[in-house]
Amino acid sequence: MSGDYAGLIKDLLEKTQSRILLVVADGLGGLPMKPGGPTELEAARTPHLDALAPSSSLGLLEPVGPGVTPGSGPAHLALFGYDPVRYNIGRGVLEGLGIDFPLTGRDLAARFNFATMDGRGDLVDRRAGRPSTEENRRLVRKLRDAVQAPPGFELFFETVKEHRGLLVLRGDGLSGAVHDTDPQELGVPALPARALEPAAEKTAEIVNGVVARAVEALRGEKRGNTILLRGFSKHEPLPTMADRYGVDAFAVAQYPMYRGLARLVGMTVAPHTASAAEDLDALGREFGARTFFYLHFKKTDSRGEDGDFAAKVKAVEELDGIIPPLLALKPDVLAVTADHSTPCRLAMHSWHPVPLLIHSPYCRSSAGTRFTERDCAAGALGLRPSTSLMPILLAHARKLLKFGA
Amino acid sequence: MSGDYAGLIKDLLEKTQSRILLVVADGLGGLPMKPGGPTELEAARTPHLDALAPSSSLGLLEPVGPGVTPGSGPAHLALFGYDPVRYNIGRGVLEGLGIDFPLTGRDLAARFNFATMDGRGDLVDRRAGRPSTEENRRLVRKLRDAVQAPPGFELFFETVKEHRGLLVLRGDGLSGAVHDTDPQELGVPALPARALEPAAEKTAEIVNGVVARAVEALRGEKRGNTILLRGFSKHEPLPTMADRYGVDAFAVAQYPMYRGLARLVGMTVAPHTASAAEDLDALGREFGARTFFYLHFKKTDSRGEDGDFAAKVKAVEELDGIIPPLLALKPDVLAVTADHSTPCRLAMHSWHPVPLLIHSPYCRSSAGTRFTERDCAAGALGLRPSTSLMPILLAHARKLLKFGA
Repeated sequence: MSGDYAGLIKDLLEKTQSRILLVVADGLGGLPMKPGGPTELEAARTPHLDALAPSSSLGLLEPVGPGVTPGSGPAHLALFGYDPVRYNIGRGVLEGLGIDFPLTGRDLAARFNFATMDGRGDLVDRRAGRPSTEENRRLVRKLRDAVQAPPGFELFFETVKEHRGLLVLRGDGLSGAVHDTDPQELGVPALPARALEPAAEKTAEIVNGVVARAVEALRGEKRGNTILLRGFSKHEPLPTMADRYGVDAFAVAQYPMYRGLARLVGMTVAPHTASAAEDLDALGREFGARTFFYLHFKKTDSRGEDGDFAAKVKAVEELDGIIPPLLALKPDVLAVTADHSTPCRLAMHSWHPVPLLIHSPYCRSSAGTRFTERDCAAGALGLRPSTSLMPILLAHARKLLKFGA
Repeated sequence: MSGDYAGLIKDLLEKTQSRILLVVADGLGGLPMKPGGPTELEAARTPHLDALAPSSSLGLLEPVGPGVTPGSGPAHLALFGYDPVRYNIGRGVLEGLGIDFPLTGRDLAARFNFATMDGRGDLVDRRAGRPSTEENRRLVRKLRDAVQAPPGFELFFETVKEHRGLLVLRGDGLSGAVHDTDPQELGVPALPARALEPAAEKTAEIVNGVVARAVEALRGEKRGNTILLRGFSKHEPLPTMADRYGVDAFAVAQYPMYRGLARLVGMTVAPHTASAAEDLDALGREFGARTFFYLHFKKTDSRGEDGDFAAKVKAVEELDGIIPPLLALKPDVLAVTADHSTPCRLAMHSWHPVPLLIHSPYCRSSAGTRFTERDCAAGALGLRPSTSLMPILLAHARKLLKFGA
């Protein structure tokens, strides 16, 4: 969606109390395991989605563009209506979102690995023997105790998992245009942080100072005597969904990265939930008071990543099971779609468009009768970029005025 | 369609005598009245369109973009191949088109209402008691007699209908960036015309002078002692269809706004017609001599706006009835589509894509067998922006050369 189009939509907004419920079944789109076979959606028993399909509009959404396999960050931003190429969230920032770290607009974030170097400073293990998360916490405490930020800056070391951590530098004038220090090979020293543009030279200098003090702090560790930094990125606050779409948006997601992505676009995020029942409770408590709801459903992606067809089919059936309580909330518009496809056939994210179902009183029926990739391909909504979804949902919720006379 | 693409199409044009007939059934796209029910097109008996469908290419066109409900102006411009966001025709200009006022490139147009204010100048009726059109004409004569344009400018007051009128100011250096004088509420005075940018200050000053003299002229009227102005817009002549597509275009439309829109893109417009038979006569007289024909069919929109499903179904059946005489003209390409949808379910324009049928010797068949929204969604032409239509019609008429070797 071009910048001008976003401006047009904003000009046409009309605030109403109608409620949109967007269910994102992560990695829902699939593939046949054998040519001509059924996809996960086709193989699953989905009586509730099947009951909705004939009176809903079906279609396909393409997350980033033809042929592009997206990560969860760009795929979600596109669903929320943000051009994922323009709003390219850096890896450091995503790592921060993934551990619920409260990033501010003055923060530079980077991922780090604990790594091991020999006496000459050459790397011998880029993952420090894959320490336990507990061991990671011990090393992070050492860094926190010994490494100081330069005057005017704040410094945060955070454990992520095993050998992985998050470094956040907070202060004015920082830049994300800094090259990784991870050389991605063994037998060579870590690279110095190098500015990719003149405005990043001060940042690179600070980072190099931080790394030098980290190495001092970790001296004597047999495994994990240095850190390798990757994915430097500045946290740039995005325009909010309230600003762009006039909605009061609420997010329910069991995994921190999705809560972080929702927070990034200004949604209010439900406290941590750990089951479908808790998700539904969280939605139910807010449903009278807000106008946009994002519910994240993770299992379809996890089972796809495992490449376990039967398990992903079961996850689809679990998704189907929450449709009746979601309908009982009486949303004005219910949309069920995915951020990206995660076909078991590939056991990873893929570039295939994702199925979309929109249920409202203003839907055209599609030729198909089930919520499957095949029926969605012949559906009333056609094949569209994921960034088209938000204006279509707003229209079905009667939140957009007419353009021109 | 980007500017570059329009340039490419222009480069590829080949003038031929082949004839394109574009039938725009206003507001044709519909919705089921009840979830899963038939749309107006599905409910109608359309033997002639049904006979064409299997050997025609079907598809869907989206007038402005996802979720956007267009007015007739932008929706028609898009069908004619003009980006409706870039060529945003102002309300004043549209009002002028709607009464066949011959606008020039030096004209600033605005809509006005006769309104009533009390002794202190506060508005008590924004529509002056909804006078008859005859009474409007009497008040307009008073304005014409008493209000003079400043030197170097010309001024036109025109009756539109009831309380509505058109003001046109003609001269050099006028700007449409002037705020409405209609405050949209009662108990307050009319607003002064205010420039929205420095270049509009002179225009605002002239308008304020015109309004002051209009108030003097209307003094003593019990109802309609002032005018409220809205939708200031400069008439910017558009590139013509002859220039962009090499066609000699002819328009037949019973309603003035559509004749005006056709004139805006340089079509020759048939004299006023008042029935399908007169429309067909007008087309028939020109059919040997020109290469592009636009026929506007209004009833489908009017009955949709009424929310009268049975009446819109009947209008669709009337549309079907003119297919045989249109085919008898032997166009090389016949296209039947809509400017926008006007579902009876909503009783207003909507954002839903519109059905498209293209009949020519070079058509791929679609999966469907009828000209309905559902079959069009699965059709050979896919879902496209309305601005894509013109190049596709030119191609089917063999008016475009190969690009590259």
